[in-house]
Amino acid sequence: MDIKAIQRELQQFASERDWEQFHTPKNLATALVCEAAELAELFQWLTPEQSWSCMDSEKSAASVCDEIADIQIYLLRLADKLNVDIDKAVSEKIRINAEKYPVDKARGNAVKYSRRET
Amino acid sequence: MDIKAIQRELQQFASERDWEQFHTPKNLATALVCEAAELAELFQWLTPEQSWSCMDSEKSAASVCDEIADIQIYLLRLADKLNVDIDKAVSEKIRINAEKYPVDKARGNAVKYSRRET
Amino acid sequence: MDIKAIQRELQQFASERDWEQFHTPKNLATALVCEAAELAELFQWLTPEQSWSCMDSEKSAASVCDEIADIQIYLLRLADKLNVDIDKAVSEKIRINAEKYPVDKARGNAVKYSRRET
Amino acid sequence: MDIKAIQRELQQFASERDWEQFHTPKNLATALVCEAAELAELFQWLTPEQSWSCMDSEKSAASVCDEIADIQIYLLRLADKLNVDIDKAVSEKIRINAEKYPVDKARGNAVKYSRRET
Repeated sequence: MDIKAIQRELQQFASERDWEQFHTPKNLATALVCEAAELAELFQWLTPEQSWSCMDSEKSAASVCDEIADIQIYLLRLADKLNVDIDKAVSEKIRINAEKYPVDKARGNAVKYSRRET
Repeated sequence: MDIKAIQRELQQFASERDWEQFHTPKNLATALVCEAAELAELFQWLTPEQSWSCMDSEKSAASVCDEIADIQIYLLRLADKLNVDIDKAVSEKIRINAEKYPVDKARGNAVKYSRRET
Repeated sequence: MDIKAIQRELQQFASERDWEQFHTPKNLATALVCEAAELAELFQWLTPEQSWSCMDSEKSAASVCDEIADIQIYLLRLADKLNVDIDKAVSEKIRINAEKYPVDKARGNAVKYSRRET
Repeated sequence: MDIKAIQRELQQFASERDWEQFHTPKNLATALVCEAAELAELFQWLTPEQSWSCMDSEKSAASVCDEIADIQIYLLRLADKLNVDIDKAVSEKIRINAEKYPVDKARGNAVKYSRRET
C-alpha cells in the first residue's frame, strides 16, 4: 500500500470539498470508532463461527470491504494530519507486543497482559 | 506499507501463541472498535482545537502512535483472515465517495450524504 | 431508578469540579462509546458461552458492574443536558420495535429489519 | 424509571421472537457499543458548541431520542441477564468517583485520574 499516495489523494478530496475544517484529530478519531462499530454491527448477532461466512454472499462481502476501507481511510487521514508514520508505529508495536506476551506465558491465553496474574 | 509481509508476521505471532482460535472475524471486529475507542478516549474531553496538541508531549504522542498501530494491526489481521484486499477496497471506496459527494454539493458540508436534502 | 435525583447528584458533582464545560453533547456521546467499548473489551476474546461466566469471579464481576454504571451515568448526564425524557424515549422505542419486528417475521431471526428481505 | 417492569417487557419481547439465544453478554455488550457509536455519529463533524443544537430540528431530536433509548434498552437487557442491580452500581460508582476526583484536585481538570501527576 502506497500510504503517501493515498494520503495525498484523501487530502485533495477533503480540500476540494472544504472538509479539512472537519478533520481535526478529535473528529477523525470519533469517525474511526463509528466506522469500526459499523463493521462490528455486521457480526453483532452472529456466533464467532457464523462470522466466518460474512464473505459468502456478495452483499455481505461488499459491506465488509466497505467498512474495512472506511476504517483504513480515516486511519490514513488521521496519521497524515498528525505526521504519524504508520509503518514505523506498527513495527514498534509488534516489537512491544512480543515483549509483553512471551510465547511461553501467552500460549492459548488471550488475557490482557496487565490482567495476567504472574 | 508491505501489507503481505506484516500480515505474515502477525500470523506467525498469533500462531506461535495459539491465538488463531481467538481471531474470528467477529472478535477482530470487536477488538477494532475497542482500540478505536481507546484512541478516541485520548481526545474525549478536549476541544477539536486542543486535539491538535496531542503530539506535543512525548507521552501523549506515544499513546497516539500506540493506538494507531493497534487499529492498523487488527485491520490487517481481519483483512488477512477474510482475504480482503485492503488496497483495492480503499481505491474502490474513494471512487464511490467521489460519486456520493460531488464537489459542488459537498463543499463545506459534511452532512452524511444519505441525510442530504437534495 | 430515580432518574431526576441521580441527575441532580451528577450535576452537582460536575458543577463542583467545574466539569460542566466538558459535558457537551458531543463529548458525552464520545464518552459513552468509550465506556461501552471498555465493557465490550471484557468479552472480546471470549466465546458467547464463556461470556456468561463474567460474574463468577469477584474481580470480573466488579469490572462489569463498574462499566455498566459508567454507561448509565453518562447516559443520564446526556439526557439531562438535552432534556430527553429517557423513560418516554424507551417506551416509544419499544412500541416502534414491536411494529418493525412483528413476531411472525422476526422469530429466531435477528437480521436488522432494514436488511430483511420480507 | 421502573427498571424491573421494563426488563420484564424486554424479556417478553425477546422471548416471543426467540431472540434470547442472541442476547449473550458478549453480544449485548457489542450491541451497546454499536448503538453508542450511532449516537456519537450524530455529533461526529459538529463542534462541541454546534452539538447543543441537536434538539432544534424535529428530525435530529428524534434521532437523538432514538439512540438514547437503544442504549438504555440494551443496558437494561444486559443488566437483567447478569443480575446486575444498576441502581446500586450507579450509587457505588458515584461514591468511588468522589474519592478518585476530590474537588480540590479535579477542579476544571478532566484528565483521567490515573494520568494525573498529583
